[in-house]
Amino acid sequence: MPKRIKLGILGGGGDSLIGVLHRVAAYINDNYEITGGVFNANHEESLAFAKEIDIPTNRIYADLDALIEAELKLPEEERIQVCSVLTPNFLHFPMAKKLLENGFHVICEKPMTTNYEEAKILQETLAKAKKVFAVTHTYTGYPMVRQMREMIKAGELGKIHKVDARYYQGWINGIIHDKEKRSTVWRLDPKKAGISSCMGDIGVHAFNMIEFTTSLQVKSLLCDFNYLYDDNQMDVDGTVLIRMDKHVKGVIRSSQVATGEENGLAIAIYGDKAAFRWEQENPNYLYKLSDTEPLQVYKPGHAYNSELSLDGTKLPPGHPEGIFDAMANIYLGVAKAIRGEAYNDGEFPTMLDGVRGLNFIESTVESNKQGNIWVDLD
Amino acid sequence: MPKRIKLGILGGGGDSLIGVLHRVAAYINDNYEITGGVFNANHEESLAFAKEIDIPTNRIYADLDALIEAELKLPEEERIQVCSVLTPNFLHFPMAKKLLENGFHVICEKPMTTNYEEAKILQETLAKAKKVFAVTHTYTGYPMVRQMREMIKAGELGKIHKVDARYYQGWINGIIHDKEKRSTVWRLDPKKAGISSCMGDIGVHAFNMIEFTTSLQVKSLLCDFNYLYDDNQMDVDGTVLIRMDKHVKGVIRSSQVATGEENGLAIAIYGDKAAFRWEQENPNYLYKLSDTEPLQVYKPGHAYNSELSLDGTKLPPGHPEGIFDAMANIYLGVAKAIRGEAYNDGEFPTMLDGVRGLNFIESTVESNKQGNIWVDLD
Amino acid sequence: MPKRIKLGILGGGGDSLIGVLHRVAAYINDNYEITGGVFNANHEESLAFAKEIDIPTNRIYADLDALIEAELKLPEEERIQVCSVLTPNFLHFPMAKKLLENGFHVICEKPMTTNYEEAKILQETLAKAKKVFAVTHTYTGYPMVRQMREMIKAGELGKIHKVDARYYQGWINGIIHDKEKRSTVWRLDPKKAGISSCMGDIGVHAFNMIEFTTSLQVKSLLCDFNYLYDDNQMDVDGTVLIRMDKHVKGVIRSSQVATGEENGLAIAIYGDKAAFRWEQENPNYLYKLSDTEPLQVYKPGHAYNSELSLDGTKLPPGHPEGIFDAMANIYLGVAKAIRGEAYNDGEFPTMLDGVRGLNFIESTVESNKQGNIWVDLD
Amino acid sequence: MPKRIKLGILGGGGDSLIGVLHRVAAYINDNYEITGGVFNANHEESLAFAKEIDIPTNRIYADLDALIEAELKLPEEERIQVCSVLTPNFLHFPMAKKLLENGFHVICEKPMTTNYEEAKILQETLAKAKKVFAVTHTYTGYPMVRQMREMIKAGELGKIHKVDARYYQGWINGIIHDKEKRSTVWRLDPKKAGISSCMGDIGVHAFNMIEFTTSLQVKSLLCDFNYLYDDNQMDVDGTVLIRMDKHVKGVIRSSQVATGEENGLAIAIYGDKAAFRWEQENPNYLYKLSDTEPLQVYKPGHAYNSELSLDGTKLPPGHPEGIFDAMANIYLGVAKAIRGEAYNDGEFPTMLDGVRGLNFIESTVESNKQGNIWVDLD
Repeated sequence: MPKRIKLGILGGGGDSLIGVLHRVAAYINDNYEITGGVFNANHEESLAFAKEIDIPTNRIYADLDALIEAELKLPEEERIQVCSVLTPNFLHFPMAKKLLENGFHVICEKPMTTNYEEAKILQETLAKAKKVFAVTHTYTGYPMVRQMREMIKAGELGKIHKVDARYYQGWINGIIHDKEKRSTVWRLDPKKAGISSCMGDIGVHAFNMIEFTTSLQVKSLLCDFNYLYDDNQMDVDGTVLIRMDKHVKGVIRSSQVATGEENGLAIAIYGDKAAFRWEQENPNYLYKLSDTEPLQVYKPGHAYNSELSLDGTKLPPGHPEGIFDAMANIYLGVAKAIRGEAYNDGEFPTMLDGVRGLNFIESTVESNKQGNIWVDLD
Repeated sequence: MPKRIKLGILGGGGDSLIGVLHRVAAYINDNYEITGGVFNANHEESLAFAKEIDIPTNRIYADLDALIEAELKLPEEERIQVCSVLTPNFLHFPMAKKLLENGFHVICEKPMTTNYEEAKILQETLAKAKKVFAVTHTYTGYPMVRQMREMIKAGELGKIHKVDARYYQGWINGIIHDKEKRSTVWRLDPKKAGISSCMGDIGVHAFNMIEFTTSLQVKSLLCDFNYLYDDNQMDVDGTVLIRMDKHVKGVIRSSQVATGEENGLAIAIYGDKAAFRWEQENPNYLYKLSDTEPLQVYKPGHAYNSELSLDGTKLPPGHPEGIFDAMANIYLGVAKAIRGEAYNDGEFPTMLDGVRGLNFIESTVESNKQGNIWVDLD
Repeated sequence: MPKRIKLGILGGGGDSLIGVLHRVAAYINDNYEITGGVFNANHEESLAFAKEIDIPTNRIYADLDALIEAELKLPEEERIQVCSVLTPNFLHFPMAKKLLENGFHVICEKPMTTNYEEAKILQETLAKAKKVFAVTHTYTGYPMVRQMREMIKAGELGKIHKVDARYYQGWINGIIHDKEKRSTVWRLDPKKAGISSCMGDIGVHAFNMIEFTTSLQVKSLLCDFNYLYDDNQMDVDGTVLIRMDKHVKGVIRSSQVATGEENGLAIAIYGDKAAFRWEQENPNYLYKLSDTEPLQVYKPGHAYNSELSLDGTKLPPGHPEGIFDAMANIYLGVAKAIRGEAYNDGEFPTMLDGVRGLNFIESTVESNKQGNIWVDLD
Repeated sequence: MPKRIKLGILGGGGDSLIGVLHRVAAYINDNYEITGGVFNANHEESLAFAKEIDIPTNRIYADLDALIEAELKLPEEERIQVCSVLTPNFLHFPMAKKLLENGFHVICEKPMTTNYEEAKILQETLAKAKKVFAVTHTYTGYPMVRQMREMIKAGELGKIHKVDARYYQGWINGIIHDKEKRSTVWRLDPKKAGISSCMGDIGVHAFNMIEFTTSLQVKSLLCDFNYLYDDNQMDVDGTVLIRMDKHVKGVIRSSQVATGEENGLAIAIYGDKAAFRWEQENPNYLYKLSDTEPLQVYKPGHAYNSELSLDGTKLPPGHPEGIFDAMANIYLGVAKAIRGEAYNDGEFPTMLDGVRGLNFIESTVESNKQGNIWVDLD
C-alpha cells in the first residue's frame, strides 16, 4: 500500500475557501493524493474545476452515488479511501452516512449535521462502520491548543474552576443592518440555514475549544440570543452561561455583530494552580498565568513542548504557523488513523465532538426560547 | 479665596493604599491642601500618622463629630471644604450623610453605601444639601476612557448594539481554596462584608464603565454567581447577562478567582459603525475597530483627542499615565465643581453613579438567588 | 500545456526543513506538481525519500547531469520546467548556472552563491538564458510586506529618511559559548561556511527587506562584527551603518547570540509623512505611524489592501497566515512568470536580489576587516 | 527636624511640563514641601505663578543669589534644604555649582551641564561640598528598570555580551522639514542649544539606561549623525556603535525624525544565560528571554521582585505606574539620602551619571566629525 492516502473531495469547487484549505492541508505532510470527487453539483463545473486545479478528470463523478458505485468496483489498493465532505451543511449528514455505510473513511466539515437527532444517528452508523471519522474543528490543530490540553491533563493548572471562551466576528453587520438584505439572505433564513446562525456557526467552536482543552464536559447551560431587529429570525449574537460540574462555571460569548472583529476566537481557563489564555489570531502565543510567578509565554517548536504539540510543528521556533498548518495537523492525525498507526488522543476531532456540538447548539436554542432557563446537555 | 481647596481626610491612615492614592491625587494638579481629618478611629494612631506624613496635627480630630463641630466654628475661608471618605464600607453612608447635612462637599470611596436603600436615602440628602458629591470610580479618570465616552456621544460608533465588560482578579485564590481561611476571613463573611464580594467589589466597576462610556443605562439583568465551595457564602465569581434596551444586550464578567489576573478590567463596545476596545492595564491604548478600515489606536495627549480627554493629560504623548493620574483627574474635576467653575459632564463620578452601582449589585444578588432569572433595574 | 508546472527538486531530502517548506509552497496554490529531482547526493537515499513522500521514482536521478540529460530528451510538454535548488550553499552556484545554461527555470535558496564574484557571473548567465530565476527571500512573500512596498511606492510615507532593520536570533549561543563546539562545528569554519556566518545567513535578509520595501538601494556601509571569543573566526553578531543616499541613513542589526530571540526579523521605515513598523513573528500586523493621526494597523485580506498584497491572501481576515503561505506566494509569482502571465514587480525575489545580497555581505566583511570604515556598494 | 524636606524650585514656572512633573514627584511620597524658589527670571511672573499654584510667596525670590542670601540667614531647621534646577540647560551648571558651594543639596534636570568640561568641574565641586546631588534620569525610577539592574547584578543573565538601546521620537519632523522653521528655531541653533540635539537630548538617556541596568561602562564608540538637510547644523538622528569591553558590543539608536514615535525608549540586553527586553511606553512589562525556557513577563509589586523594585511600587499588581511615579521614586531616594537614611545603590542617578552622559555626548560628536571613527570614553 503506497504511503499517500487516496482522497476524494465532495464540494469545495470554484472559489470555495474551504476547498483551498482542505487541499493544502492534504498536501502539507505528503500523506494524501487527491484522487477524485464531486466538486460541484453541476458535473460540467466539477470537471472544469478539476482541470483548473489540474487533477485527473477520470474520477470526477456526477454525484456521490456514482462515486461510490465506481470506486467500489476498483481494486482496494486503487480505491478512494477517505472523502472530505465540504458541501452545504444540510448535505453533511446524508453524505457522511452513505460514505460510512459503504466503507469509506470520512473527514467532515463542521457542523457535522444540521441537528442533534441526525448527529446521534450518524454516531450509530459509525459504531457499526468502524471507520475513521473526523470533524474539522480546525482550531484544535494549532500546536499551542494541543499544548494546553496536554498541560491541563498533566495537572499544571490544578483543578479547573472557571472557563471563559468567545468567538467574535463582525462580518454580518453589512447584512443585518440593511432591512432588504437581512430579509433575503439565506444565512438568516431558518428554512435554509437551520436553527441557529451565530451559535451554530461559531459559538460551537468556542464550546468545542473548552471541551477539547479541559477534557471536561459542559453539563448544562443558559442562553440569551440577540436578533437585533424584530424582523430577523436568526440569532446573530448570544451569550451562554455554562456549568461543567457543581462548582465549575463559565461563559461562552459569541457574536457576528462584534464590529471590526475578524476571527476573534479566544479562551481563558482558570485553575487553582495556574491559568491559560490563548487567542486564535496569534496562535503561537500561549500565556500561562499564576498568582505568584511571572507570566510565562509558551511558543511552538521548543523542547519544553508536549509531544502532541510538537507533532504538529514543522519548522523551528519563531516562524509563524498559520491556519493551513492547523488544518494540516488534523489531516496528519487522520492519515495515521487510516493507516492504523499509533496516534495521540486529540490529534483530530472525532464524531463525538460533532455530536456534542449539535447537542450544544440545540440546547442554546432551547434555553433562549424558554426565556433563558438552564438546559442540561446529555 | 485661595486656589487650594481645604481637604479633610477620613480614614486612609497607616499603610492604607487608598490613602496614598487620594493624597497624591489631591496634590497632582495643585488644587488641594490636606488640612486635617480623622485618619484612624484610634485618635493616638491618627495623630501619629499625621506626624508621619508631616501634616499639622491641630486639625486632626478624635472623630467625625468633633471635626464637624470644630470646623463649623472656623471662618468659612479657613474651614475644611470637602472630605474624602476612605473608611471601611459600612461607615461610608453615615459619614457621607452627616457631612452633607453639615454643608461639606464629599468625595466618597466606592461602594458608596452597603445597600441600595441607603444609596437612595443619601441621594435625597444630597438633593437637599446641594453640595458636590463624587464617588471615586477611579477608572473613569483615564484619558482614553473619557475619549471613548466623548467619541460615542459624537456618534462615531453609530448605534451601540453590544457591550462586553469584565473585571477579573485572582487574588482571592489564596483564601478561597484554604478551608480554614475561607471560613474566617471577614471578606467572605456576609455579616461583615455585605451582600456580595465579587460583584460588589469589582463587578460594579465593569457595570459603571459600561454606563459611563456608552451614556446608556442597563435596564435588566440575569446573574449567576459561583461560590466555588459549599461552605462559602459569598460570591467570588459571577457572570451577568444585561439588557440595555430591547435590542442592546451585553455581558459583565467578574471574578476574584481568575488565577493570575491582576486588575483585569476591560471593555468592548460594538456599534453599527465602529467599535472600541480598552484595557485598564494598558490604559493609554484605545482601539477603534471597523469592518472596513484599518484598526486605529488612539493615545493620550494628541490634537485629535477630545477636550475631556486632554484635560486629564499632563504630559506629552508617549509618557505612560498611571492610576495616580486617573485619580488626580477626578480630584481635578471635583475641584472645578467646588470652586463653581465650568466642567464637563463626566469629569467625576457623581452620586448617581453610586446609586446605580448599588442598584446593580442588589439586582445581581437577587437574580442569582432566584435561580438566574431576569431582574429589572430602577 | 497543463496548468501545473513540472517541478524538479535538488536537495531537500530526509528531514530537511527547507524541503518541507518548498514542497508545501509548491502545492498550496495548485500550480506545480513535483515531477522528480535529486533529493540527495546518495542515489539510494534519494530514491528512498521519494518513496517516503510517495513521489514516482522514475524521474529521481543520480545527479544533476543525469537529470538534465534525461529531461532534455523528453518532449517539451513532459519535461521538468523549473528546478528548486535546495542543496548546501556551495552547490547553489554551479547547479543554478548549469540549469540556466540548459534552459531550465530556477528557484534558488539563499544565499544565491557563496561570493559576490559568482553572483555576477550567474547574472550574466541569466542574461543570456532569458529564464525565470527566483531567490527565495521568503519574507517578501508576506502579504503585509508587499503592502508596505506598494504603499511606499504610492507615496504614503512621503520621502523616506530613515530605515532600521534587525534580524536577531539566539540559537548559536549553545555552540559559541562552548569552546569545544565552537572550534569544530562547520558553521563557524570559514573554509566550510564561507566568509560570514551572521551577516551572510540572516543580516542579508534584513538588507533585502530594506531594499524590497523602500525600492531604494543601499549605497555604502560601515560594519562592526562581534566574534565573542578570540578563538572564533566567524561573525556571530554585527551592526551595519548604512547610507542610501546623502541624507537617508539607517542601521541593520544582526545577531545569532541574541539570547532567546527566535526569528526576530523586524523593520521600521520612517518617511516625512508617515512610518511603517513590521515584525516577522506577527506578520499579519502592519503598523502605520503618524505624528498627527492615530496609529493604524493594517491586516491582510481587506478591501483596503493593495493588489500585490491581496494576491497572496487566500483566506478571510483574521486567519493567521504562516511562513508556508509566504513561500507559497513566491511560488505563485514564479508560476505566473513561467507561464508568461502578467505579474507584479515584487511577486518573487529575482536574481538581482541575490546579487545585491552578496554585494552586501562582502562589503560588511570588508568594512569590519578594515577597522570599521565606510565601503561603497556597486 | 520635621519629616518633610524643604524644597526650593528654580525654573519650572508657567506651563512648564517639567515643573508639573517635579512638583508631583515631590508630593507623591509625603517627603517634601515646596518652600519657595525662583520659578521665572521675571520676578513678577514668578510671584504670579506661586499664587497660581497657591504656594506662599514670601520665599519666592528675585534670583538665585537672593535665595541663597536669604535662606542662609534662616535657622537651619527652617532653611530650604534642596533645590530642583529646572532652568534652561545653560543655567544648570552655574546654578548647581553655586548651590553646592553654599551647602544646598541639588536635584538637577538633565543634561547636567552643556559640556563635559563643566561636568568634571561640577564633580570636583561636589567632592568638596559633600552634598546629595541627583540628576533626573527619570527612567531609572521605573520599578522594572530597577528590577533589571538587580537581576543582572544577581547574575540571572549570565555574562552580558550584547546590548541594544534606542530612543526614537518624531516630534522634530514638523520643524526639520520646513526650511523656514529649521533655520530659526533655537533647538537647531548650535549657539543656543549646544553641540548636539538628538544625542544630547535623548540618545544620552539610552546610554544611561545601558550603564544603569548592566552596571558596565561604555569604553569606546563610533558614531554617525544625520542632519537630513545641508543647511541644518544639528544632529536630528544618529546611530552609535559601542564597545563595553573587548567582546561586549552594542548599539545605541537615537532619532527625532522617527515619524510617529513618541517616547520610544527601549532596551534589550543579551547575556549567555538569558536576556531582557523593556520599553518605556509599557514600563510595567519586563520580558526575560531564554533559549530553552518559555518567555517570562515580570511585573511590579510581586513577591518575586527585588527590594529596589518594590520600594518604588506603591500599589498592588495590575495598576499601571506612570511617569509621575517614576520621578517620585527618584525624589524618594533623594529624600532618604538627605535625611541620612539608608538607601540602595541605584535609587537615584548621581552626578557620576551626569558626568558620563556629557562624556558620551561629546564623544559622539567627535566620532561623527572625524568621519565615524572609534573614540574612547574616559
